[in-house]
Amino acid sequence: MRPVRLAIDTVGGDHGTPVILEGAIAASRRHKGELIAYLCGNEKSIRSQLRDFGLGAQEISDRYIVVDCPGELCASDSPSQAWKTRRDSSMVRCITLQKEGLVDASVSAGDTGILLGAANFILGRQDGIARPALAALLPTSRKKPSLLLDVGANLTCRPQQLAAFAKLGCAYIKKLTRKDHPALALLNVGKEPDKGTRVLADTAQQLKKTCPNFIGYIEGSDILAGKADVIVTDGFTGNIVLKACESFHLLVESVMHAKSELMDMLKTDLSILNAENYGAAPLLGINGIILKAHGRSSPKAISNALATALVIARGNESA
Amino acid sequence: MRPVRLAIDTVGGDHGTPVILEGAIAASRRHKGELIAYLCGNEKSIRSQLRDFGLGAQEISDRYIVVDCPGELCASDSPSQAWKTRRDSSMVRCITLQKEGLVDASVSAGDTGILLGAANFILGRQDGIARPALAALLPTSRKKPSLLLDVGANLTCRPQQLAAFAKLGCAYIKKLTRKDHPALALLNVGKEPDKGTRVLADTAQQLKKTCPNFIGYIEGSDILAGKADVIVTDGFTGNIVLKACESFHLLVESVMHAKSELMDMLKTDLSILNAENYGAAPLLGINGIILKAHGRSSPKAISNALATALVIARGNESA
Repeated sequence: MRPVRLAIDTVGGDHGTPVILEGAIAASRRHKGELIAYLCGNEKSIRSQLRDFGLGAQEISDRYIVVDCPGELCASDSPSQAWKTRRDSSMVRCITLQKEGLVDASVSAGDTGILLGAANFILGRQDGIARPALAALLPTSRKKPSLLLDVGANLTCRPQQLAAFAKLGCAYIKKLTRKDHPALALLNVGKEPDKGTRVLADTAQQLKKTCPNFIGYIEGSDILAGKADVIVTDGFTGNIVLKACESFHLLVESVMHAKSELMDMLKTDLSILNAENYGAAPLLGINGIILKAHGRSSPKAISNALATALVIARGNESA
Repeated sequence: MRPVRLAIDTVGGDHGTPVILEGAIAASRRHKGELIAYLCGNEKSIRSQLRDFGLGAQEISDRYIVVDCPGELCASDSPSQAWKTRRDSSMVRCITLQKEGLVDASVSAGDTGILLGAANFILGRQDGIARPALAALLPTSRKKPSLLLDVGANLTCRPQQLAAFAKLGCAYIKKLTRKDHPALALLNVGKEPDKGTRVLADTAQQLKKTCPNFIGYIEGSDILAGKADVIVTDGFTGNIVLKACESFHLLVESVMHAKSELMDMLKTDLSILNAENYGAAPLLGINGIILKAHGRSSPKAISNALATALVIARGNESA
């Protein structure tokens, strides 16, 4: 098998080129002989940094091709124009290399909008796809990730787009996991068929006809439960839920920070992640105090809901 | 100070009346003398269960008032009609008690739609509020919760509604935490003023004029960071992100389950929560393979992004 050729935008990341290069070196060593990295960016700087990382001339020439890209992207560049006006930037160059058949895939940590625009205009869309989607793998409690899409390329979506995302997501997961019939779900505010918006109802109807692996709606609480391999939503919701999930581990780390040896202490602190400690959801805008507890409330959740009601009722008295 | 009178719907929870009663008893003992619980449901069953929990006649008569509600809600009841057709159900009775001035607040774990409808029609809305909102407290890494709203009462929202939710949320947090100027934010796909939808731009403009404590947009990753005391969003996004956050501790527990003593082992496993292990976001629908890594990518994230690109490129070869 010939090595896979990967174009890497060494410029786009928030932490600068060294961080991107360190990652590229790690992957290249882990997959020795399997990949050739096309490092796009400032050639002089890339070569000097590769040497700083201790790579010899032989390793560099065997595994890396440095592509000099003198241009730079600006924050003010238009997503629909940058692919034309910034042809010599590292990001646009990565995609052009792919268009020219010189690489098999591209990786960039740069601006999402510009990347989308460049990919769209230089590589074009697949047949029958009106808008590309951005997808993300999320960890699940079943120890296999689920693919969530769209996560920000299309803030609002029509049923046709969502149905197209479903196909794209399933095809991607098949490729990534070799699973032939990935379970497909639509993200909604409830599992029941009558929940959600008109757009979701229409999408579900389409998917029922066209996707035998469509398992219906799932709720936010099932995103991390691994019930679906592919979860389809609009880019606004997807972006926000993705970023929230990604930030979870920061919360866990902040919980663990001050603590040390014992799991018991940890478990106590992890309880702040448990929604039942926050009681119930207040209904606001009503002339009165209504707290909506979870249907699945435990005694503790109910007790906390009552404590909350108490505080609010007291607050009304003193207002 | 006279005790606060709380109406409790003992029927609505998924786990049945005993769970609700156990919570009520815990709250009542914790806040001894401060609250009187109006237990709405099947009187005979409630009284028998209170005795099963070991409560004596004196404790029951001192702290509880049992309100017999012979009616029952059905899954098929209409949210806009049930308040009329199910007057003798425990949930509607709770709200009616509040309307009659017999209780100060109500807690229910029953159907959200019916609860909203009943609250809306029986108690009415506050002045200037077109639609009530449902709010939820989320844990944050600053160890103080943030209030997220709407979390499901209004799936799509106009700017006027979102601005009204902002006011409702700030007023509630002031009451709950006695914080005079709670930091208010709008949930969006980016921090920059040009990000997001037209509805959000219009809402932000309104809030800038009317709320001195408006701190602008925040992203999904900052929901749990405690940057804002009140976070406003539409009910669709809010519902999904809330449920995802609430389910997070299940993921942590599933990670911890098989493990025992050592924090090191735990830390290794918690790494599945760390998005950088999932590399980059694939751009789907494009004729090509584009992976969008985070701007804040670490070497490990980049390395994993490359590994993903490798798998996908290999998958294309064999397809």
